[in-house]
Amino acid sequence: MATAVAPANIAFIKYWGMRDPEHILPYNSSISMNLDACLTTTTVLFDPALDTDEITLTWYQQVPHPATGRPRERVGAHLDRLRQLAGVDTRARVTSQNNFPADAGIASSAAGFAALTLATAAALNLDLDTTTLSRLARRSGSGSACRSIPDGFVEWYNGNDQKSIAVTIAPPEHWDLADIVAVVDMQPKKIGSAENHRLASTSPYFGTRLYEVQQRLDTVRQAIAQRDLTLLGTMIEADTISMHVVCMTQTPPSIYWDSGTLAVMHAIRAWRDEGLESYFTMDAGANVHVICAASDQHDVQQRLERLSAVQFTLVNRPGPGARLIPETS
Amino acid sequence: MATAVAPANIAFIKYWGMRDPEHILPYNSSISMNLDACLTTTTVLFDPALDTDEITLTWYQQVPHPATGRPRERVGAHLDRLRQLAGVDTRARVTSQNNFPADAGIASSAAGFAALTLATAAALNLDLDTTTLSRLARRSGSGSACRSIPDGFVEWYNGNDQKSIAVTIAPPEHWDLADIVAVVDMQPKKIGSAENHRLASTSPYFGTRLYEVQQRLDTVRQAIAQRDLTLLGTMIEADTISMHVVCMTQTPPSIYWDSGTLAVMHAIRAWRDEGLESYFTMDAGANVHVICAASDQHDVQQRLERLSAVQFTLVNRPGPGARLIPETS
Repeated sequence: MATAVAPANIAFIKYWGMRDPEHILPYNSSISMNLDACLTTTTVLFDPALDTDEITLTWYQQVPHPATGRPRERVGAHLDRLRQLAGVDTRARVTSQNNFPADAGIASSAAGFAALTLATAAALNLDLDTTTLSRLARRSGSGSACRSIPDGFVEWYNGNDQKSIAVTIAPPEHWDLADIVAVVDMQPKKIGSAENHRLASTSPYFGTRLYEVQQRLDTVRQAIAQRDLTLLGTMIEADTISMHVVCMTQTPPSIYWDSGTLAVMHAIRAWRDEGLESYFTMDAGANVHVICAASDQHDVQQRLERLSAVQFTLVNRPGPGARLIPETS
Repeated sequence: MATAVAPANIAFIKYWGMRDPEHILPYNSSISMNLDACLTTTTVLFDPALDTDEITLTWYQQVPHPATGRPRERVGAHLDRLRQLAGVDTRARVTSQNNFPADAGIASSAAGFAALTLATAAALNLDLDTTTLSRLARRSGSGSACRSIPDGFVEWYNGNDQKSIAVTIAPPEHWDLADIVAVVDMQPKKIGSAENHRLASTSPYFGTRLYEVQQRLDTVRQAIAQRDLTLLGTMIEADTISMHVVCMTQTPPSIYWDSGTLAVMHAIRAWRDEGLESYFTMDAGANVHVICAASDQHDVQQRLERLSAVQFTLVNRPGPGARLIPETS
């Protein structure tokens, strides 16, 4: 038995489009920051008395429920992957809970599968390094889960199954940024990101995006190394627009932005004109991650919460990756 | 002295990006529908007693005001263009009024410069055919004004100065469509379309857009000929997204969409899922043109007006192009 906690992460350069659905390989490398306050906690207990895996999920502000359908299949398949590695066949009892809204563009599946990977490996007494854990987390199907394994600022490399791993490019304490998630829409997404990862290449703009991303990756690495918020911010806004442009121009088109998304985007641009520097980025959902210096966090958060489009905010700083929680009993 | 009335037009395939700023030549052909209810009425009187052109504009729901700055220059330059053609030097008194909100993505400058072109030509006793009038209207600087000269459904050809004219591809009575303009935002645009026409080619997606547009033009012509609303609607939504994608990815980015724009876009998609067929298209502004069969106009309009994001609606059918109004005195 083991318990792990893993963070959600916000991508500065997005993973969008899956090149190899069997090995969950992306078309491009991506860069993200792990969040210190949006966490999934997962306990895995292997019990020879079980006939089948028992998986219980607790969504944000909801009662626990048994996993069914596709989520159940995905967790079961990931348990199988790790059981095979350990050479065991025992079934497991899995309980997992989020402290933030799921399915709203806050990378809940990344946090979930990172925590599941680490807890399962520990419960099976597999002694795996971070690189191997990130590769396994990627194979879960939620590719960006690999970025929730190492600490702080993370790059997930494009490459073959061996090379496509996630590594820390700067520790959390390197740069005192804030990510304030402006929650504007609590409805579940109509189109899951998994489906859109398959549709991305139907966009006539997808090739151009891939070309641009190569240059943006270099610039974002440099912006992080030099703690250059203006450079980082310009890149992350361009990248999120580029990703959503791919969604909106694929067949059939998918529009994740909602009215609240646009309200926050325009507010941030107006505040920048007034001298308050923050930048927007949206993952596959309507909610807006607002990146700013930690020193401006209070001001930005207050302004966001005064917008009628914003239901509430979640404040994050750069945080560590997945880690085990010692047993207290 | 002569008075002309000219319609705004809604582009199904957008004019976006200016290839030749001197001759106002576009990068691509475009297709539009003239609107029967969004009109500009312009009177031009040449008076030898005048030392300078006197230009009075009456915006929607505002008192008349003398034109100043850039609008005054543009009208004066267009009067010069026609004076030169007629070989006269007399100054003119110009009065122009809109019956719809200006500068809100409803092609007010297209209607205005089409009416100005026709009224001025008539006041100067120039006997010009529709082709020549459309070429002159294009040269006004508001290129899409040329599409407000001929009747009904119109194509503006890409080409050199002689060939880049607008022609009717179907008369107004060919297809009983409705264009319901959902006005969500009455603020003037922050960035005029003239500036963005120059910036369009800085978008890395602009080349892809131009490639796509060639195919969409063929399909839209076919959809109009066959009165195929589903085909037309699919194309116009793809084209407006493509145009706004160019804006959002140019340097610097320009985001015309507002929260109300997204609210209407999502509502229209949801109504389609319920079986009510309508399609969105936005010109260079936040307001949404909703295209549907005239038989669904009442239903669509009622639903739009129930959305909190919609301030009011303007209903249009396909209409004639610019025409002279006989003197009643």
